[in-house]
Amino acid sequence: MRRSFIREILEHTSSDTISFAGGLPDVSLFPHKELQTATHNALENAESLQYGTSTGYTPLKEQIAEHYSERGFPTAPENILITSGSQQGLDIICRYHCGASITIEKPSYLGALNVFRLNSMETTSIPLTENGIKLEAFKQSIAKSKLAYLIPDFQNPSGRCYTDKTRENIAKMLEDSQTLLIEDAPYSELYFDAPHKSISQILPKQSYHLGSFSKVLSPALRVGWIRADVELIKPLIAYKEAMDLHTSGITQRIVSEYLKDSESFEKHLQILRVVYQEKMHYFCKQLELHLPDFEYIEPKGGMFIYGKFNGVDSRALVQECLKNGVVFVPGVEFGGGNDEIRFNFTHSSFDEITEGLKRIKSVIDLTKS
Amino acid sequence: MRRSFIREILEHTSSDTISFAGGLPDVSLFPHKELQTATHNALENAESLQYGTSTGYTPLKEQIAEHYSERGFPTAPENILITSGSQQGLDIICRYHCGASITIEKPSYLGALNVFRLNSMETTSIPLTENGIKLEAFKQSIAKSKLAYLIPDFQNPSGRCYTDKTRENIAKMLEDSQTLLIEDAPYSELYFDAPHKSISQILPKQSYHLGSFSKVLSPALRVGWIRADVELIKPLIAYKEAMDLHTSGITQRIVSEYLKDSESFEKHLQILRVVYQEKMHYFCKQLELHLPDFEYIEPKGGMFIYGKFNGVDSRALVQECLKNGVVFVPGVEFGGGNDEIRFNFTHSSFDEITEGLKRIKSVIDLTKS
Repeated sequence: MRRSFIREILEHTSSDTISFAGGLPDVSLFPHKELQTATHNALENAESLQYGTSTGYTPLKEQIAEHYSERGFPTAPENILITSGSQQGLDIICRYHCGASITIEKPSYLGALNVFRLNSMETTSIPLTENGIKLEAFKQSIAKSKLAYLIPDFQNPSGRCYTDKTRENIAKMLEDSQTLLIEDAPYSELYFDAPHKSISQILPKQSYHLGSFSKVLSPALRVGWIRADVELIKPLIAYKEAMDLHTSGITQRIVSEYLKDSESFEKHLQILRVVYQEKMHYFCKQLELHLPDFEYIEPKGGMFIYGKFNGVDSRALVQECLKNGVVFVPGVEFGGGNDEIRFNFTHSSFDEITEGLKRIKSVIDLTKS
Repeated sequence: MRRSFIREILEHTSSDTISFAGGLPDVSLFPHKELQTATHNALENAESLQYGTSTGYTPLKEQIAEHYSERGFPTAPENILITSGSQQGLDIICRYHCGASITIEKPSYLGALNVFRLNSMETTSIPLTENGIKLEAFKQSIAKSKLAYLIPDFQNPSGRCYTDKTRENIAKMLEDSQTLLIEDAPYSELYFDAPHKSISQILPKQSYHLGSFSKVLSPALRVGWIRADVELIKPLIAYKEAMDLHTSGITQRIVSEYLKDSESFEKHLQILRVVYQEKMHYFCKQLELHLPDFEYIEPKGGMFIYGKFNGVDSRALVQECLKNGVVFVPGVEFGGGNDEIRFNFTHSSFDEITEGLKRIKSVIDLTKS
């Protein structure tokens, strides 16, 4: 097993390095006070310190189920399996389907690629277009795949968002070929214009929908979940149990207490959407100013700007950039092209965005001269 | 994959059922106030809500390393990998050694048996004696095993504790056969008389030592660790990362804040030792009073009394007991004999212990009549 570029970078960069690498939220936007209050309430009772059930803390499962139902996707607590982050959710599913064939996007999420490797899965990568995965190639691939793994909302790393038409086509194709869908949805609430209907909602009996509080509340909680049909959830419980017994009862209770004030959560999401969109626009403006050769499509949500410097080896570039106090992830890490790059625009401050891009510019200027 | 008897029981017993089943701590002994304070401090800074590093929160790794070193087992933070409970620690190690042969105790910990199954390991079970595992049989078995899994301190489920002489013999045997040791040590601090030297301490280059805060602080934290040589730790990090990125930064910080007052932790451990010993003695007295046919050896620490009703099918018995509001775990679940039983003595109150054993007596009386 290889370690992830991003997580190794996280461990070895100094505090002076400006990082556009990880999918990190903006610390200043965490609902810090509200989470402090929620934590205080979560620990009121000593029973909250005891072992819990493997499927998760019931009130939290109820709240998540309600959240789905309110958005037109009827869901009961029995459809929810709480996991230690959605990373674990993906691993549980893939461990259960160990060795299976799976159709994925190209490029795709680094942490998912590691999970597929760990579970000896046969991956087939289908390129992304602006509207989502290439449909004809996808159809051919899933005819031979047991599973498909997609990130339709503000995809990681590409930032692409599937059109509604593409979603419907995909659901139909999956139904026809009886391929199970794993839909990874950590960025779904981080839309700049409007939310999208999940593919799972069109295909509820045949899909695992992965959710997470990492991008919208706090990654340190490590609380995520799998939403699936009860028959799909059932066999996963023994895996969850063998893997870590259950997710922390304390962090589950913190989330549950926080969600009790649903208005406050909605307000918080609204702030994230507005500020992240501002940051994205600022990042794009600075790219045009300092790195006008960078080709990309503006994302409509999420955390990433993906694109390329035509003909530049981005792996060589990042090594030089690291020496100059700035880092990003080369597209190759995600199965993308040699000249492709993923920038995270949510974590850094406005000043850091400017400074970081200037540093990249100076590295490129040096290599040119 | 089969679910664990204990965890299914946990989910399906009513609140009126007296449970001697799970390895649950006594809720009234949780250092509730101190953990509330630690939690308050842990969340003081918004940075504590951000992603963390895969190997764990550095101050906590330092504290754990210091704890080992103070007890004569020289340890650096690099020897520690923080895991989501020691259950995950065991799974990470076994996943890395997937399919390997492993020598284990008979009976052994249920959650470990599930991990071995999940990772397609070939287990060879060697019976326990009063002083530890049967040495001659163990020696023969490890000659053909890549790994050995032992719980030398107040073993789960048997309650047995290895003598110092046995530990030394085992270390020598493992060294000779170059077999890696996984030493599971969740109960080590719960001794009634005196602590024991771990086998890992005699064999530091060739052992994984699993630790946990679940039994001595709070299971809801889900914070455990692997202590091993740096070369053994290194390849595990990529697995930890793919499995859940990292353990909750919030619960890690809670533990770290709590441990800052080491005197308070020592005092807390002392209380656990005294009260659990009292409970054990009370349980034994009540056993003699109500169930004098139950044969067992008094444990010298930990959480369990293990023994048997000669000739009684304990699986049939537990089904009847469940209908009568009391539950325990049949020895068969751990790979033990049909008439064997594990009782947890830490979770129930003194009154519940009396009432629970009376209920078992009445079930037995009924089946006799």
